[in-house]
Amino acid sequence: MKAIAVEPGAGTPTLIDLPVPEPAPGEALVRTLRVGVDGTDDEVIAGAHGGVPDGDDRLVLGHEAVGVVEDANGTDLEEGQYVVPTVRRPPPGVETNVYFERGEPDMAPEGEYVERGIVGAHGFMAEYFTSPADCLVPISADLAPVGFLVEPISITEKAIEHAAATRSAFDWRPESVFVLGNGSLGLLTAAMFRTTMGYDRVYCLGRRDRPHPSIDILDELGVTYIDSRETPVPEVPEVYEPMDLVYEATGYAKHAFESIEALAPNGVAALLGVPNDWSFEVDGGRLHREMVLHNKAIVGSVNSNRDQFASAVDTLAGLPSWVIEDVVSGVYGLEEYERAFSDPTDDATADDDTTIKTAVEFSNI
Amino acid sequence: MKAIAVEPGAGTPTLIDLPVPEPAPGEALVRTLRVGVDGTDDEVIAGAHGGVPDGDDRLVLGHEAVGVVEDANGTDLEEGQYVVPTVRRPPPGVETNVYFERGEPDMAPEGEYVERGIVGAHGFMAEYFTSPADCLVPISADLAPVGFLVEPISITEKAIEHAAATRSAFDWRPESVFVLGNGSLGLLTAAMFRTTMGYDRVYCLGRRDRPHPSIDILDELGVTYIDSRETPVPEVPEVYEPMDLVYEATGYAKHAFESIEALAPNGVAALLGVPNDWSFEVDGGRLHREMVLHNKAIVGSVNSNRDQFASAVDTLAGLPSWVIEDVVSGVYGLEEYERAFSDPTDDATADDDTTIKTAVEFSNI
Repeated sequence: MKAIAVEPGAGTPTLIDLPVPEPAPGEALVRTLRVGVDGTDDEVIAGAHGGVPDGDDRLVLGHEAVGVVEDANGTDLEEGQYVVPTVRRPPPGVETNVYFERGEPDMAPEGEYVERGIVGAHGFMAEYFTSPADCLVPISADLAPVGFLVEPISITEKAIEHAAATRSAFDWRPESVFVLGNGSLGLLTAAMFRTTMGYDRVYCLGRRDRPHPSIDILDELGVTYIDSRETPVPEVPEVYEPMDLVYEATGYAKHAFESIEALAPNGVAALLGVPNDWSFEVDGGRLHREMVLHNKAIVGSVNSNRDQFASAVDTLAGLPSWVIEDVVSGVYGLEEYERAFSDPTDDATADDDTTIKTAVEFSNI
Repeated sequence: MKAIAVEPGAGTPTLIDLPVPEPAPGEALVRTLRVGVDGTDDEVIAGAHGGVPDGDDRLVLGHEAVGVVEDANGTDLEEGQYVVPTVRRPPPGVETNVYFERGEPDMAPEGEYVERGIVGAHGFMAEYFTSPADCLVPISADLAPVGFLVEPISITEKAIEHAAATRSAFDWRPESVFVLGNGSLGLLTAAMFRTTMGYDRVYCLGRRDRPHPSIDILDELGVTYIDSRETPVPEVPEVYEPMDLVYEATGYAKHAFESIEALAPNGVAALLGVPNDWSFEVDGGRLHREMVLHNKAIVGSVNSNRDQFASAVDTLAGLPSWVIEDVVSGVYGLEEYERAFSDPTDDATADDDTTIKTAVEFSNI
């Protein structure tokens, strides 16, 4: 079968041939339909993040997948069922650990998990993959074509759940929400806030000129686009309003600190970006004091668990179909899979870059 | 009656005469027993924090009080009942607002409250004070002599409640806790963690040489004293262990950021200090990444509500009596009230400074 893999240092993914995997007891064999591409893939390809499985010299990419059960192999699944795989698995040679037993692999610290397609385990960018049946989340046939959006949405489900938990000791009534970043995850999250979660006052930060398809989506959703080149994050409360909830999906480290200033009293900022080392000056006294005197919280969030994947399936079903259509800017067959990946020689911030979210199609639905 | 007040800019508290206040409907008249002194009082005296009531030129100090009901004035209280007053009240001219209605004045933003003895309302350092009956929390006769510790303990009750809330979205099982600061609040909190909350692995950061009475208390409690001059906060995980919960009570702004590095995966840091502006460099990229990849949280916490005062009464009852005796280093009558306040000409970090917690006594129990 065909698979898309990367060798450390190569800098670009390549198409390789692999045998169709055999499901072990408790696993099903899944025929892959589509696999999404995101910034983590870019980092893995660039060698900035992740790593090959022990003893291997390349990594099959892909962690945002949707497929159909080809061989249930005696599990509870039914052949023909559409499914989305979760990403984390126990490390090699370990059957489980407390985090997996609790259904919270997303809370496992480094060394206590591998991530398929990212670190230590092959991903889903192959014509077939195997997975433990309990790591496969069912999805309906009509959502299957965009089922590769379930994984990114599940990341937001977890972040919002954890952010809300930070405010659960008092009567918190958030009204204004602010998404930092208008990439595909930021857009999907802004769409969730505005539609399935019903917030009236949703803002989204970017640094792109109009016209751009991502800003068109925000306009159509009734989300206020804030250009960070005109209004830096710390000025947002004065120019727009203080924010009850900030959702950071930029990986731009200064935003983590500026979020404190964007928050309303009793607000919370959820951080999702994974920046590199970067030293800079902050008014740490002011930020510290502001967090205390106004009961503010910051919460980091990574990965997601099966329950959050299941919530993401519901969210995906609730999002307006035009949003999904507009966010997914390209689905490419194996014969042109390179088009799904960003070209590192491109300037990703160029004004004519209209790519939002891409996926590779491995087989027809 | 006698009261202890401060004029803005005077820099030292003075004894003044005031008429005994008359309770309004719904209020009781309380005879003051003792009122504790803390760092906030020092800041108010120095003019760095707080402010006089509208139209007044001085502020009666004191927010950590215990008294006895002298005139119940038709409220549900009984005369002779020992009580501790909460600190926040609605702003002048306002009967209530949503925060007070919800029983959460501690979550009110600036402008939506005054704080007795701190900002906008006279405090409890007078022979008598009045208070709405529902802002008076009953305390038993045997705890009354140290009832002035209820307010500081309530601050910790709230901070721990909010910190635990941040971790309520998953199965969090904290084992190692780290108190930054071995002042009276740090010591009381370390004692709570070790005794009433039952943690085996409690650490407390200070920058004092042995022998010092605060370190003796930690030793006796079985709390590990960490000298920050030998082991800076970011090195604590390697030298001791990563911390599931950090409680910051120093007001030293760098600690807010260093806490992120002291935390174990999935840990939370509660910030309570109120530092002044202070710019410094941080590796913001590393801190941001660390928060995300290890699901860490930071939560600021200020003030406390009636329920947390009530919890604090229970905690005070559960603390070993020797801890209370050793923490309270001096209770001074009105004839020598100056001794209860720190002398700003002193170097508070001097090795021979053995003061931990002081109070002024206004009348005998």
